[in-house]
Amino acid sequence: MTKIDLNSDLGEAFGPWRMGDDTAILDVVTSANIACGGHAGDPATMVETLALASERGVVAGAHPGFADREGFGRRLIPLSIREVEQLVATQTGALMGAAALAGARIRYIKPHGALANWAADERPVADAIIRATRAVSPELAILAISGTELEHAARDAGITVFSEIFADRGYLSTGRLVPRNLPGAMIDDPAEAAARLIGYLSSGLMPTVDGVPIPLDAHSICVHGDSPGALAMAVHVRRELQKAGIEVAPFLQPTKENR
Amino acid sequence: MTKIDLNSDLGEAFGPWRMGDDTAILDVVTSANIACGGHAGDPATMVETLALASERGVVAGAHPGFADREGFGRRLIPLSIREVEQLVATQTGALMGAAALAGARIRYIKPHGALANWAADERPVADAIIRATRAVSPELAILAISGTELEHAARDAGITVFSEIFADRGYLSTGRLVPRNLPGAMIDDPAEAAARLIGYLSSGLMPTVDGVPIPLDAHSICVHGDSPGALAMAVHVRRELQKAGIEVAPFLQPTKENR
Amino acid sequence: MTKIDLNSDLGEAFGPWRMGDDTAILDVVTSANIACGGHAGDPATMVETLALASERGVVAGAHPGFADREGFGRRLIPLSIREVEQLVATQTGALMGAAALAGARIRYIKPHGALANWAADERPVADAIIRATRAVSPELAILAISGTELEHAARDAGITVFSEIFADRGYLSTGRLVPRNLPGAMIDDPAEAAARLIGYLSSGLMPTVDGVPIPLDAHSICVHGDSPGALAMAVHVRRELQKAGIEVAPFLQPTKENR
Amino acid sequence: MTKIDLNSDLGEAFGPWRMGDDTAILDVVTSANIACGGHAGDPATMVETLALASERGVVAGAHPGFADREGFGRRLIPLSIREVEQLVATQTGALMGAAALAGARIRYIKPHGALANWAADERPVADAIIRATRAVSPELAILAISGTELEHAARDAGITVFSEIFADRGYLSTGRLVPRNLPGAMIDDPAEAAARLIGYLSSGLMPTVDGVPIPLDAHSICVHGDSPGALAMAVHVRRELQKAGIEVAPFLQPTKENR
Repeated sequence: MTKIDLNSDLGEAFGPWRMGDDTAILDVVTSANIACGGHAGDPATMVETLALASERGVVAGAHPGFADREGFGRRLIPLSIREVEQLVATQTGALMGAAALAGARIRYIKPHGALANWAADERPVADAIIRATRAVSPELAILAISGTELEHAARDAGITVFSEIFADRGYLSTGRLVPRNLPGAMIDDPAEAAARLIGYLSSGLMPTVDGVPIPLDAHSICVHGDSPGALAMAVHVRRELQKAGIEVAPFLQPTKENR
Repeated sequence: MTKIDLNSDLGEAFGPWRMGDDTAILDVVTSANIACGGHAGDPATMVETLALASERGVVAGAHPGFADREGFGRRLIPLSIREVEQLVATQTGALMGAAALAGARIRYIKPHGALANWAADERPVADAIIRATRAVSPELAILAISGTELEHAARDAGITVFSEIFADRGYLSTGRLVPRNLPGAMIDDPAEAAARLIGYLSSGLMPTVDGVPIPLDAHSICVHGDSPGALAMAVHVRRELQKAGIEVAPFLQPTKENR
Repeated sequence: MTKIDLNSDLGEAFGPWRMGDDTAILDVVTSANIACGGHAGDPATMVETLALASERGVVAGAHPGFADREGFGRRLIPLSIREVEQLVATQTGALMGAAALAGARIRYIKPHGALANWAADERPVADAIIRATRAVSPELAILAISGTELEHAARDAGITVFSEIFADRGYLSTGRLVPRNLPGAMIDDPAEAAARLIGYLSSGLMPTVDGVPIPLDAHSICVHGDSPGALAMAVHVRRELQKAGIEVAPFLQPTKENR
Repeated sequence: MTKIDLNSDLGEAFGPWRMGDDTAILDVVTSANIACGGHAGDPATMVETLALASERGVVAGAHPGFADREGFGRRLIPLSIREVEQLVATQTGALMGAAALAGARIRYIKPHGALANWAADERPVADAIIRATRAVSPELAILAISGTELEHAARDAGITVFSEIFADRGYLSTGRLVPRNLPGAMIDDPAEAAARLIGYLSSGLMPTVDGVPIPLDAHSICVHGDSPGALAMAVHVRRELQKAGIEVAPFLQPTKENR
């Protein structure tokens, strides 16, 4: 039987502002990428999100991003390579401090937004994230977009790495995502998204917008909970995967702090 | 022979802005309270300050403060008790992440500014800091202003606690500092400061502005490096203490990461 | 025929985060208090909210608050009196810059949250806000909570001042609001809120939780749009006021930039 | 007799942190570019710097920059063109609010750091700054780096524009600055800087590192006060210019609020 993880970005509130329905999406996913106070999150949100994830046995990861709340970490801030390392180490450390208070445990790192895109394309950025990860804790894994420099960098460094695909994004025959401004970039229909994922999980081949299906390696599917539509798609995808006999389970075994 | 630690607040730069001469004060002190990105500090400053301290064998502590850079953590932000815990845990965690990258190690926590004053007076605030400290690491000690609620809270919780006095501040017969707006609050003359400290260390009695000298317990003297005058006083105090046969040494034994 | 203004706080988004449904509440109110980038708001939100208000003929006011986004301006930041002046002048100026770009015009100032409460109780804070208002433009009016020091300060300084009551808050016989932690503080039922306001507007007397109805002077009713329930109450109140023959109209005549 | 303005960036403190000696540089320059709370500055600094400039008859300009304090506005933040307009309008508005309180007046806009470099090269960015300038006040002039897109955009829009050269930077034969990482980028010797400027002002021709001197048009020389060395160069340049019979005077006539 095939097995897959579902992951989502969480803890992206800030002060009085909410971002999606974290409680609802925590009932769908098996791994939670939690904002670290950089692009989103504050100490209360970090601790409370970790506690919610831990109660549900959802595995917790750090989700560091550019410290640019106004741009939500989606704008590329031209840091030096050394600053990337420092950002990842301090944000992950902050979330580990929150986890200590919440009785939870951080198991992996998945970079956010523009930082993730940068690390997907640029090996020195990916290497900086890997160095920070290893320095902070030898037990941390990496969750990387499938086929990216970050995945390669983690593998080359001997760090446990899991790869993800996206429930709602189309693929190019190069293995990269269709850019958001091109046709086929977004998959809005939950039924289409679920069918495509089941097809992929059965065959190991992902359809592309510009060619034949390609082999792709993935341990996790990224879903979203930041809008009612996204949440509905996540719920539908999980249900259809299970109906198709696919086990939805975390890529890392939950520990007692992730239970 | 009497022994005493010298501590100072460091790593209080932010972005392009400097605060004092960290390199110079690191040659004077034996313990460094390092800002955690709340009232001051940023990832680069945190990592670099920790590396500088480690190179010199200066013991490193976390110096969490209200996340109010414009007010430099000197304004009381009315957080809830739970938010105080969350602030201390995440800021200390962030600095531990920086320490991991710098090859350094955080050994104690000393709250900053208005948070320190609040914790000195209010037991629930002090208890929140203690809970965060214990959650983040059972190996962390507390550096508290002598005679405060924070010192009591740490002792009652069974956490190792060290207490500090100030090189440049006058004392009341209650054991508290003379408020800054009253005469005798500040000691500006390095010679006077040094003589007073030597007297105190020889007798265990601290002169007061409104009565007889009082017994005071201290493991460390807080000095400053944020102005040329403050730095000159710190240098003078250290030299005079040593001339008087007092050993200047950290209250915690440096580890290999603090060497 | 009686006439009353309806006002609400708007433009309280920040970066990726929304706060309520500004477009919907703009169809209900006649005056909009727009955040200035301090407790909430960013340049894009400021300009866009002003443009939306202007299109609908809703009169625009500045809504300055403590520059504490994480606390949403609801925590008292102990500024100096001079700093209160500087905060109000620069935040109002920023919104006037946004108005220039939006083709809108700022007509009044209403302080936000903890700053408003402080100015309600403390005359020196109220006077600072008045000085800033007068300095920035002699044409700006003040919108103050009825019966507060801010209202008195504006009147004594010869500045046009309008006063507001709250659709959803109970009153004490002192004329002040019932504190949020006491019974009767909040009115949750739209029908009750509307009936109470119609009663007040017909008689000039406001019911109190601890005595007889009291005379109260008001030019505006503050409603909220930051939750579906609040918006529903605002819609209901407006409809019921109009059914009762009360004209809902701004306290300041819209200019061409407010239409 | 030749006449030239001297300008410098001022008001770049933030909270507890200083940046250079504003009082000293105000005795050297005739125009002051004052930070608007974006890359640097806070309400108190804005008001106080404007008051200091006004007392000395130094003409005040707005110095908007990316709202990235940690990067001091020197990192390119990829805003949309519309966001550039909104940034310039709100930051300039904020400084005008401060000026109202300080009894001063804003006369021109000079963008800062990475925003200035972007506007130098990209016409749409330059046009956005010009639109914001014109919207905020038809009386505002532009101070642009000589030969840039911003200068052209202002001229084409019919806005009064002044151009600047740098006391401490070398020029290429294209009229652009030597990039900071190449030889000849920086001129560190005050005597060399002064001699070069006097030569340029006498001939209209600026020496270049890679060719013959080129004609350059300038109304102002940019000097710095953010380090003791920079301040010493500014003082020396002013003195030598005056010795050479060159009048040091603002490009805009001071009004009563600038005196």
